[in-house]
Amino acid sequence: MFYVSEDDVRSHVSITAVTEAIAEAFVALDQGLSAIFPVVRGWGSDPTHFYGVKSGRDGGCGLLGTKMGSYNPSNRERGLPAHLSNTMLFDDVTGMPVAVVAASYLNGMRTAAVNALAVRMLARPDAWQLGVIGTGGQSIFEIDAVVRERPIGRILAHARTRLGSEAFVEEVRRRTGIEPELVDARTAAGCDILVTVTPANRPVIEQGWVRPGTHISAMGADNIGKMELPVDLVRASALYVDLPEQAVVIGETQHLAKAGFVTAAQLADRTLGALLTGRAKPRTDASQITIFDSSGIAIQDIAAAHRAYRIMLAKRHPRPDPRRPRVTP
Amino acid sequence: MFYVSEDDVRSHVSITAVTEAIAEAFVALDQGLSAIFPVVRGWGSDPTHFYGVKSGRDGGCGLLGTKMGSYNPSNRERGLPAHLSNTMLFDDVTGMPVAVVAASYLNGMRTAAVNALAVRMLARPDAWQLGVIGTGGQSIFEIDAVVRERPIGRILAHARTRLGSEAFVEEVRRRTGIEPELVDARTAAGCDILVTVTPANRPVIEQGWVRPGTHISAMGADNIGKMELPVDLVRASALYVDLPEQAVVIGETQHLAKAGFVTAAQLADRTLGALLTGRAKPRTDASQITIFDSSGIAIQDIAAAHRAYRIMLAKRHPRPDPRRPRVTP
Repeated sequence: MFYVSEDDVRSHVSITAVTEAIAEAFVALDQGLSAIFPVVRGWGSDPTHFYGVKSGRDGGCGLLGTKMGSYNPSNRERGLPAHLSNTMLFDDVTGMPVAVVAASYLNGMRTAAVNALAVRMLARPDAWQLGVIGTGGQSIFEIDAVVRERPIGRILAHARTRLGSEAFVEEVRRRTGIEPELVDARTAAGCDILVTVTPANRPVIEQGWVRPGTHISAMGADNIGKMELPVDLVRASALYVDLPEQAVVIGETQHLAKAGFVTAAQLADRTLGALLTGRAKPRTDASQITIFDSSGIAIQDIAAAHRAYRIMLAKRHPRPDPRRPRVTP
Repeated sequence: MFYVSEDDVRSHVSITAVTEAIAEAFVALDQGLSAIFPVVRGWGSDPTHFYGVKSGRDGGCGLLGTKMGSYNPSNRERGLPAHLSNTMLFDDVTGMPVAVVAASYLNGMRTAAVNALAVRMLARPDAWQLGVIGTGGQSIFEIDAVVRERPIGRILAHARTRLGSEAFVEEVRRRTGIEPELVDARTAAGCDILVTVTPANRPVIEQGWVRPGTHISAMGADNIGKMELPVDLVRASALYVDLPEQAVVIGETQHLAKAGFVTAAQLADRTLGALLTGRAKPRTDASQITIFDSSGIAIQDIAAAHRAYRIMLAKRHPRPDPRRPRVTP
């Protein structure tokens, strides 16, 4: 079995490579070439140990795949990662196994990649101030991905607590060359681009804090009850989602849907895929507020794992240089 | 990643070892130590390529696991197996990956293992004639597993067509030492133990063909619409299932449930697990007809993959002989 380890991913797979792979996957999704199968939610014998399974078919790379993920907060006491993911890939035509990819680090990149693509399609071209609510492990990936899409010169981050904020500042500086400033939520919300990346169950900002022309990527909501933005702000903005059917159930959009303001059908051409294929219109003017609601879908996992597999395949089995004639001994 | 290949399974994992592992899993299930998560049904871009995902937690071996399976009939033209399965195992406490197990051959054994256990608990002790309806690949596993549980002296098999029946006869003889006789369905149904292992959507036998005291293992129904036995026969018999909630939806029992004759709650103590722990009563007398309805559940996959992993772990990393003192060089 071809196996890609966490070390392989950390050493050889860039967030840029993952972002481009996922762009292709969302194009294929919009072209009707892909499928998302139902999400499974399970638990360990300790009910705080969540076990989730996401499966689908990515017509972009021609693979079926299943990501098996654990979220296990008590792992922190054990010195083990709380988030663990592994993705197994299968050929769409034959069903034969292709690879097993350790996808814990990759999961951080695949989530940030859709944020980067949303920023690419929706943020003002001159956006230079990046606000971030939440400074946990995932926020580093989000910042790393977004700074590649716009001429970011300033990063204003809001942390709920000071715990771990030194490590956050150091890691952001190391990756981006920019020293992030720790600010209150209101200041962070006043930036050109705002990324919310929290496990919150109620709004982390107020509507009045957001300036005209802002793009917001709401990355946190991926389950029933989760919420980062005020419903009125989302209603008043140009809303885009990853997958309408899922966004109205577990995404930020669930709160609009529950209040009867929007249905999945109404969002059919308000997707990241439709933006990338040109089927959906991006922002209409420089004063519009745009929001991308990321709930996370299996084709991200399949496309990211496939890219990691391809990179490691090329490293382990380099193709002979076609310019050098092959000599038969 | 610890990987167990198809060759490893074929060479080192016996149907007896799998049967005992699965007995432990059904005991743990009956003790409330396990969980079955929802089954995912997906498809390849070719809609005849079925892709299914079964996940759960087996409290018997302390693992979470996911089996990813393909059924792809067009693979036969490619010289590839139509059924493909792979199971990935995770530690219940930490969520850390344990192994990936190639489970195509293992899947045949894990399915037959519950049949063997049902025969062990339900068939008459003196049962010596085994009838089989269906002579496809799975029927070989079923026969191999059942002959280990009772003093079988005669195997009467019914095939829908003569296609492949020579290979069937040869393989059964090789595995069991018994020359199977190819007979009509009525003759097969008249045996002490009857195994139906077909993809049928309507009864493959008639009620009047079954003699008092017969045990029937209905192995075929694992999806909506599938059916092997007449509803009146099932109603008139002592019915046992693997998992009530699943049996009433995709098992043979679905047809009784649909007609309003039985509910999942009524089957709560009519399970294989309850038979093994002694909570359920086996046959009351030698003239009763007993039926076991197998729909197939994730703990079978986890327990079988775990046993294969343990066997290969011991082979690759043999423990030092405790009788020989360890010499420090």
